[in-house]
Amino acid sequence: MSKIKVGILGASGYTGGELLRLLYKHPKVEITTVTSRKNDGEDVSVLHPHLESLDLKFSNPNSKDVDADVVFCAVPHGVSMKVVPDYLDQGMKVVDLSGDFRFKNIKTYEKWYGMEHIHPELEAVFGLPEINRELIKDANLIANPGCFPTGAILSSLPLVENDLVERIILDSKTGISGAGVKPSDKTHYPTCTDNVKPYALTNHRHTPEIREQIGNFGELDVKVSFTPHLVPVIRGIYTTNHSILVKDDVSEDDIYSLYCEYYKDEPFVQVLKDNKIPLLASVRGSNYCHIGGISKDDTDQLIVISAIDNLVKGASGQAIQNMNIMCGFDETDGLKELGLYP
Amino acid sequence: MSKIKVGILGASGYTGGELLRLLYKHPKVEITTVTSRKNDGEDVSVLHPHLESLDLKFSNPNSKDVDADVVFCAVPHGVSMKVVPDYLDQGMKVVDLSGDFRFKNIKTYEKWYGMEHIHPELEAVFGLPEINRELIKDANLIANPGCFPTGAILSSLPLVENDLVERIILDSKTGISGAGVKPSDKTHYPTCTDNVKPYALTNHRHTPEIREQIGNFGELDVKVSFTPHLVPVIRGIYTTNHSILVKDDVSEDDIYSLYCEYYKDEPFVQVLKDNKIPLLASVRGSNYCHIGGISKDDTDQLIVISAIDNLVKGASGQAIQNMNIMCGFDETDGLKELGLYP
Amino acid sequence: MSKIKVGILGASGYTGGELLRLLYKHPKVEITTVTSRKNDGEDVSVLHPHLESLDLKFSNPNSKDVDADVVFCAVPHGVSMKVVPDYLDQGMKVVDLSGDFRFKNIKTYEKWYGMEHIHPELEAVFGLPEINRELIKDANLIANPGCFPTGAILSSLPLVENDLVERIILDSKTGISGAGVKPSDKTHYPTCTDNVKPYALTNHRHTPEIREQIGNFGELDVKVSFTPHLVPVIRGIYTTNHSILVKDDVSEDDIYSLYCEYYKDEPFVQVLKDNKIPLLASVRGSNYCHIGGISKDDTDQLIVISAIDNLVKGASGQAIQNMNIMCGFDETDGLKELGLYP
Amino acid sequence: MSKIKVGILGASGYTGGELLRLLYKHPKVEITTVTSRKNDGEDVSVLHPHLESLDLKFSNPNSKDVDADVVFCAVPHGVSMKVVPDYLDQGMKVVDLSGDFRFKNIKTYEKWYGMEHIHPELEAVFGLPEINRELIKDANLIANPGCFPTGAILSSLPLVENDLVERIILDSKTGISGAGVKPSDKTHYPTCTDNVKPYALTNHRHTPEIREQIGNFGELDVKVSFTPHLVPVIRGIYTTNHSILVKDDVSEDDIYSLYCEYYKDEPFVQVLKDNKIPLLASVRGSNYCHIGGISKDDTDQLIVISAIDNLVKGASGQAIQNMNIMCGFDETDGLKELGLYP
Repeated sequence: MSKIKVGILGASGYTGGELLRLLYKHPKVEITTVTSRKNDGEDVSVLHPHLESLDLKFSNPNSKDVDADVVFCAVPHGVSMKVVPDYLDQGMKVVDLSGDFRFKNIKTYEKWYGMEHIHPELEAVFGLPEINRELIKDANLIANPGCFPTGAILSSLPLVENDLVERIILDSKTGISGAGVKPSDKTHYPTCTDNVKPYALTNHRHTPEIREQIGNFGELDVKVSFTPHLVPVIRGIYTTNHSILVKDDVSEDDIYSLYCEYYKDEPFVQVLKDNKIPLLASVRGSNYCHIGGISKDDTDQLIVISAIDNLVKGASGQAIQNMNIMCGFDETDGLKELGLYP
Repeated sequence: MSKIKVGILGASGYTGGELLRLLYKHPKVEITTVTSRKNDGEDVSVLHPHLESLDLKFSNPNSKDVDADVVFCAVPHGVSMKVVPDYLDQGMKVVDLSGDFRFKNIKTYEKWYGMEHIHPELEAVFGLPEINRELIKDANLIANPGCFPTGAILSSLPLVENDLVERIILDSKTGISGAGVKPSDKTHYPTCTDNVKPYALTNHRHTPEIREQIGNFGELDVKVSFTPHLVPVIRGIYTTNHSILVKDDVSEDDIYSLYCEYYKDEPFVQVLKDNKIPLLASVRGSNYCHIGGISKDDTDQLIVISAIDNLVKGASGQAIQNMNIMCGFDETDGLKELGLYP
Repeated sequence: MSKIKVGILGASGYTGGELLRLLYKHPKVEITTVTSRKNDGEDVSVLHPHLESLDLKFSNPNSKDVDADVVFCAVPHGVSMKVVPDYLDQGMKVVDLSGDFRFKNIKTYEKWYGMEHIHPELEAVFGLPEINRELIKDANLIANPGCFPTGAILSSLPLVENDLVERIILDSKTGISGAGVKPSDKTHYPTCTDNVKPYALTNHRHTPEIREQIGNFGELDVKVSFTPHLVPVIRGIYTTNHSILVKDDVSEDDIYSLYCEYYKDEPFVQVLKDNKIPLLASVRGSNYCHIGGISKDDTDQLIVISAIDNLVKGASGQAIQNMNIMCGFDETDGLKELGLYP
Repeated sequence: MSKIKVGILGASGYTGGELLRLLYKHPKVEITTVTSRKNDGEDVSVLHPHLESLDLKFSNPNSKDVDADVVFCAVPHGVSMKVVPDYLDQGMKVVDLSGDFRFKNIKTYEKWYGMEHIHPELEAVFGLPEINRELIKDANLIANPGCFPTGAILSSLPLVENDLVERIILDSKTGISGAGVKPSDKTHYPTCTDNVKPYALTNHRHTPEIREQIGNFGELDVKVSFTPHLVPVIRGIYTTNHSILVKDDVSEDDIYSLYCEYYKDEPFVQVLKDNKIPLLASVRGSNYCHIGGISKDDTDQLIVISAIDNLVKGASGQAIQNMNIMCGFDETDGLKELGLYP
């Protein structure tokens, strides 16, 4: 079988590096283009030292000169909506990793991202396969979900679809790589390590994205709060989902069974055997979402925990999963790696 | 002025080491006894390498041979209740760092600690100066609060005393030193670092301690949940207090002002200027509790954050603060160190 | 092509977990046996939480009941020499990860490991493919090299084979996983993180192993010193090789070219483009050895740096590389993973 | 006794913050001026969150308006030589923390720092009290030593003064705070943690500073090499001193005794009891230099280890020690803090 051709736009960051690490071994993919404006002509190993053995260079081509069947767009939001249409127009499939196409309600996007959307007419499928697998199959444009939303939504779906909860408080702990490749005060080692620092306590951009999906675009009546914390971890998003049950006639075991059933056919969501508590480190480098630790206390507070690698299931791995579905490949192609533990 | 004599019982652990580090510079204290059964006769620097310059040895005396005005008891719960009475009988003041004397309701103790209390008749004062300063002045036996309860209670008091909230969900992140000096799977570096792992999701022993104090022993009608997470940090307890407001007619600013007013005379509780978000690292090694980041979202969820060093304000520093109050010293004697940052 | 059958003896530790992580995807291998005395009957994910998706259980079979073509022996030294002969006698090929069969000079083994060797007659090939590839092809018993020796020897070979240096001082920095899965004071998070601690300053067991190989069993006249340091890193061995040149008529560029030439056909040793300084994190999780940073100062001190993952090229990955060579597979089968960075 | 007035120039960085943390408790010091051009008018806690309880603001005065007896100059090299003369001219004593005044040989400075020295006529005393205590007493301008040189020189003095070694190879491991408060690729958490990365392998600016002092300005015939490595630690410099002995008739015990004798009256250099191996974490936050682990192997390689906190004994603490000596205070005033461990 011949391989499809793949391009990666904006490959100088962590999601770009991660796409390269994973796609390089994908059995059905040939990487034809790896773009970076700033690093045009340089070996990819200059920015991605783990890719020393690949013989690839960054380029900075005109969109017309990109030879690809599928394009991964890893440029910043705001830039993405400008470049994506060029590739769609040429008949390529696009997986966009920015926030530009994630919202059904464009006004929500414009409010939270502080800019006008120049292509509100473009319809993208929100690329969470656990919700939208069928739609993804036929899509040309995938809005790859945010890292926090991926973990948050997967921890919540069985609860909201069964009307079990009235309120969900998502307390997330994230690795520092989520802040990207560019150094800043936020990512400075001496004040990042041996520390905990939350940010955007009640106003993170991923909040409306989570709410659209969890609330099924306003259909479901559940209050959703979300707070992210930086913890001294490289990769990963650990979400402690504190939900308030509507009524107390449901047991921990019932809910655990519900999750097992809900995700039983999912290749990348694992409800842990014996309801073990997930460890962030167990999913390091892998595309798995681990769910477990389902517990209820005597105040009708329910805890559900999800753990993902923010750069894999929370970004590049999920993007490849979406490509696999769009292209009719096995959904796990190129994504079979287990977590790197310890 | 002559110095008081102080003994430390069970000084081989982290709270023992921390008492030594801090008391060694206390202007009104002379350390006369440092006990350890296992390390009898050894230099304290064998276990506490930062104390190389102190000329102190562990001993293992009979309680009758301890020459002290105040005794800090840093032995495990269960052991503490056996040894404390001997020192009280000799007229010494005791600050107990275990859980043995923290509960008004002995049945609660016996249920959560899984053992019979052999001295239910002993009355201790719960040593949180911000609640019980006057009682501490006259006390002979102080039950030094648990590390999680200290941060949790201080984050909650202004809310519950003003009947502002109906439910408090405490999502705490703790440094690994809280697990003590003894190696275990829980504290093994390769699986502890670059990881997040909660434990005792809905059944940690500190839950009833927090509930007794926050609920004022049943008088207040507020639901309290508590979940601790190990994060790769040496010291510190970071508590994200997610509260549900009773009504929504109170603003963030109102609540921030309320906290400022409530703690304005407290030497060790700092409501941060401009409502800054606390950093765990800012209180490293100090007796301060930082409070800030007070935020409300559109679902009546209120966030308040507190940060302490679990070994100082959460244990040994608070124990010394209690001693200072009991002995009529300046409350900040020996505790003036600022955080070690970065 | 049918797959070979593989057994892993003593799979409860980190090298066992790593063999499973890597072999599970090996195209020519079927894992038939995973032994652990203590965990007989348990799911492997109980000890190796990243292996949740594998459906494998530990067993504790008699050697006669192990159905395998190749056996990886990951039990402790001393135990290994007792069990290995049983498998050889049954005609299986064995890769032993302990120190038991690494020494040509049995007296050296007995002195440094403090025990009598009960099978001095068994001849093993020292499994460093970069030295012994041809011998490995025909071997039945491979002594997989120690983690420190792997990085140390690879950093030294071109120098000693060209008689360039009179003295080699190896200052190695190792991740904590090298201490194994069992918790100890040495691996206790609170005193392991934010710290540097060397050990066995001049008397580590890997010293004689390094000396046998670097000195070609006494043929070469070069003084070799080795000192390991624990640094707060999970995986990896970073070796700063400080060598004293015999004469000063050789330039940095000459030596860099020498290394490039020496390793140009090696699939897993990469002399970095442009003589870049290796990063430990670049080889995380991969079987690569990165070499670079070759520099000379005005005192004829030469620096060469090597970086490996102690659990992969320093243990389980190299073991699989040896198996591939012994079995006539492509040497890189199952080992194509790039480093996980960041 | 009245307090002296102290100013800190360029207090926005880590050494500035550390001077404030330590001086705030100094019994004989009043802080009158804390300058920062960029942060003029701001509360110091905006940059130094651990100083929340201090009531100090940054200012940006003309040198004539600084009211101080002693000035600490924590501005970058190059800037320092421009501003220091103004303060000396006003009769103030100056402790300069930059490299500008550390070299006896101005040509060495100009070569390694790449700029012309505009005040070569100014004579400073190299502020390592263990060498120059008597000269410091009468000095007006102190060149506070570099962080690496402090640990390196203290590890070497007894060896070179007794003509025991012909070559010293200093392999240093440093915490990331040494790179300063400004974020950069070098200090970016995701690639800094779980990593080891050396830099300036044979050409670090501290090399000539170390050589001037260890070689006693050319009088002693010893070859000195120095290589720094960044390890994932906040603070500290750990120096593994690999020396080659001139002859082999000296034992480990002899050398250990020599070190004990050499430093026996030093308040801040501790040769560890029983020749224990120093831990970097033991000196965290303190002004101590720990020395130990003295070991010799069978190739006449001698190991001596020193550990300091780069921001305290390696910078701000040593600066205060110098001030104490210059002002006739007790040398340990304000510096009695023990290490923060764990």
